[in-house]
Amino acid sequence: MGMKRKSDSSDFEYDAVFIGGGGAGHIGALFMKSQGGKALIVDQDDHLGGKCPKNACYTHHLFYDCAVELDFSRQFAGKLWWPEFDSKVAILPIIDLFKAKREKTYGGIELGARVRGVDYILRQKAEIITPHLVRVGERKIRTKAVVVATGARPRIPSIPGTDLKGVFTHATLVEELDYEPERILVVGASKVGTPYASFFNACGCETTLMDQVPFYPFLDHEVRQYVIRGMVERGMSLFQETEVVEVLGEDRVQSVHLRKGDKDWAVDVDAVFMATGMVPNSEIVRHLGVALGPNSEIKVNGRMETNVPGIYAAGDVIGPPMEQWKARKSGITAARNILGQKSELKLGFCPDQLHSTYEICCVGLTEKQAKEQCEHASVLKLGIADARKPGVTPMAERMMIMGHLYPEKTGFQKMIYDADSGKVLGLHHVGYGAKDSFTYLAYLMEKGLTVDQLAGMTELFMDSARFIQMARLATWEKTKT
Amino acid sequence: MGMKRKSDSSDFEYDAVFIGGGGAGHIGALFMKSQGGKALIVDQDDHLGGKCPKNACYTHHLFYDCAVELDFSRQFAGKLWWPEFDSKVAILPIIDLFKAKREKTYGGIELGARVRGVDYILRQKAEIITPHLVRVGERKIRTKAVVVATGARPRIPSIPGTDLKGVFTHATLVEELDYEPERILVVGASKVGTPYASFFNACGCETTLMDQVPFYPFLDHEVRQYVIRGMVERGMSLFQETEVVEVLGEDRVQSVHLRKGDKDWAVDVDAVFMATGMVPNSEIVRHLGVALGPNSEIKVNGRMETNVPGIYAAGDVIGPPMEQWKARKSGITAARNILGQKSELKLGFCPDQLHSTYEICCVGLTEKQAKEQCEHASVLKLGIADARKPGVTPMAERMMIMGHLYPEKTGFQKMIYDADSGKVLGLHHVGYGAKDSFTYLAYLMEKGLTVDQLAGMTELFMDSARFIQMARLATWEKTKT
Repeated sequence: MGMKRKSDSSDFEYDAVFIGGGGAGHIGALFMKSQGGKALIVDQDDHLGGKCPKNACYTHHLFYDCAVELDFSRQFAGKLWWPEFDSKVAILPIIDLFKAKREKTYGGIELGARVRGVDYILRQKAEIITPHLVRVGERKIRTKAVVVATGARPRIPSIPGTDLKGVFTHATLVEELDYEPERILVVGASKVGTPYASFFNACGCETTLMDQVPFYPFLDHEVRQYVIRGMVERGMSLFQETEVVEVLGEDRVQSVHLRKGDKDWAVDVDAVFMATGMVPNSEIVRHLGVALGPNSEIKVNGRMETNVPGIYAAGDVIGPPMEQWKARKSGITAARNILGQKSELKLGFCPDQLHSTYEICCVGLTEKQAKEQCEHASVLKLGIADARKPGVTPMAERMMIMGHLYPEKTGFQKMIYDADSGKVLGLHHVGYGAKDSFTYLAYLMEKGLTVDQLAGMTELFMDSARFIQMARLATWEKTKT
Repeated sequence: MGMKRKSDSSDFEYDAVFIGGGGAGHIGALFMKSQGGKALIVDQDDHLGGKCPKNACYTHHLFYDCAVELDFSRQFAGKLWWPEFDSKVAILPIIDLFKAKREKTYGGIELGARVRGVDYILRQKAEIITPHLVRVGERKIRTKAVVVATGARPRIPSIPGTDLKGVFTHATLVEELDYEPERILVVGASKVGTPYASFFNACGCETTLMDQVPFYPFLDHEVRQYVIRGMVERGMSLFQETEVVEVLGEDRVQSVHLRKGDKDWAVDVDAVFMATGMVPNSEIVRHLGVALGPNSEIKVNGRMETNVPGIYAAGDVIGPPMEQWKARKSGITAARNILGQKSELKLGFCPDQLHSTYEICCVGLTEKQAKEQCEHASVLKLGIADARKPGVTPMAERMMIMGHLYPEKTGFQKMIYDADSGKVLGLHHVGYGAKDSFTYLAYLMEKGLTVDQLAGMTELFMDSARFIQMARLATWEKTKT
């Protein structure tokens, strides 16, 4: 083995060339280096870290944070020390702030890679000549394996007019917006479309959010209602099961022609934000006979191997879930297998999230799913749905001012469990401050979490999600004699 | 058994009289009722729920929430849409808002008790004649057991002048404050004193925080530094190892005479807030021969039994930790044992929290403790202490605006683990949004949580505490070949 390893090293300059330096390629390469392997990252963009710090996670979260603070400013206007607030807020300065900080973020990520001794090449395209030979500019690089981690890009449906000025995606908005939109249509109530629409609305833009299908089919029906009502109450126009027929305008978008069933109408807008899904950037492997799925995602097994020996893929290019955790884990899994550490990526029990002006988190089953799958699925909930009980609002950290002024706007929590076994089946939260918990709750649920276990835990009052106290009520029900 | 139970029921009107309707008595009684037992709550105050909704948890958290929003208003003043903000904020309207909502909270708690069929008597003192006979006004109540859940009250040290107008505790502030303080001294950097001082300071009061001992000895030294620096940067005056010699004033407090070592000085103030600990309200059992501890707390065993058969105690009256979870759990434990369900309260692995304008959470060992107890204690951290890495700041939910304007103010995170076994030894967080997590992290640590387990979890990016990603780095170190 020692000999073989040595021979590998002399044949190949690298154990792996990671094409794409986002969550998958960057973390995969750092991991490989930490294990004594040789890793090279090649990215055609000007930075490491991929789209997360460029126009995805960081941008979304900054805009979300602005949306919450602006929502507070509007909700609390004229109360306590809060001044009147009905002004339109400029978006361009927020983008400028984002971009100024982005350069520093890039610098920090690069420094991290340098400190850890990972090689990287930026601003150059890689071409895979064979699974063991990659061309970068004039240079040909011999490598034991290639990890394709080229990510995904926004999908623009083929609708007339989407090439007009004033039509944006999350990838172009921060680069190209050069005016202050007054009226905006967000196409796609996705995990991207929803927080952006909430942000535009909180900034004072007249905002319409629409989707071809009903909003949020993955959410529990009461959570979904709460989230949708929250957006309506904040002045957004929502259209479900509605299609864009055409985007109209001359120099710039001026209106959008919409259709729902046999009803046609136009919405006047000065900007359109497309949040209509992502397309994997898999073109780079087309000439190699690498198998692709129906959405042109690269097909991989649990070890991140494609059907072509020596070619691995990781991150968004292998399809959904297009989440940071999957990017990181799949990049590490590819690296492990290339180094001979057998490893399979198991998706397991995943928590999920969505942002409006609220943080919406869930794990496990919805009430409907639970009642279909389990004879004695029981439900406990807090918040608006429990309005019979005045004062019993899910007040918690960062919700106290809201809770004192508008208790009905403090969120909603729901626990679903099997009354027979005590197993926790689903946990749902609308509010703030519980998101991190869902990481641990998902892990615990995968291990068979019961309401008895939850009931015995030590909660830090006031807990954002109140699941511990709900679990106590559940165990009382269960043990009633 | 059936016969005995029946005979009990006929001898006694109740299985337990809970004296005090706070977290311990209220939840203990609800639990007892849920199990088919008969429970009566007697509280001399005008509401159920004890001090938590009256002047403790709810008040603290509302003031904390105001402190955070005011901190944002001051930090971000003149940036983006935030207006200039250097005004003094009135405290009385915040208190009025709190008190208006409090009545509704009381109503909600009472309704919950009525719906669940728990008997309660308010606005009357209970007198324990024997462990089986309680007098409430003219009424004598026969009971199988008594649960003393009378809570605790602020301790006022015997310092001249603390009886002056303008000297408050958390219990009197919301009832008695009738002017807007300009300069305030907070005595005691406790879990009460620190958030109140941060709140007064955020409102624009000239605020001094002091303690007889060094601040926050229970915190990790770097967390402690970060928290203290944060308060200094926000304009608070801090004095550690300093004593109050005398509070001076005529009609109202005008100055406080302080002493540190051989240095004496006076601070001009128009209000003093005493956060100098709590005294258990154990006077009610003195005539019964119930054993008390050195701080006059009622001594109980793990079943919440005192040395006098039939007399149980629960909640703050049994001493620290004076936390909501302990109140609830000890009340339930007392109820269980009275009903013959053998049960012991185990304190186990507790998470802890403190508020400044940050949420500060920890569980397990500090770095110093870990290095004393474990040969290969390793440390990973994010935030200010890692300032070598520009841009690597712990940005997360509700920290993004701060992270873009003042990255050094986004908090601090630290993980301590045993490099040999991989066991997680201590987790520390300054920021927002990770508090709920510490409930689950404490449970997992009690079960032997390792960095490998953490590293395999599915994080919801951007995660507030980043422990999962830290754990990945830790496992890489560990598995390096």
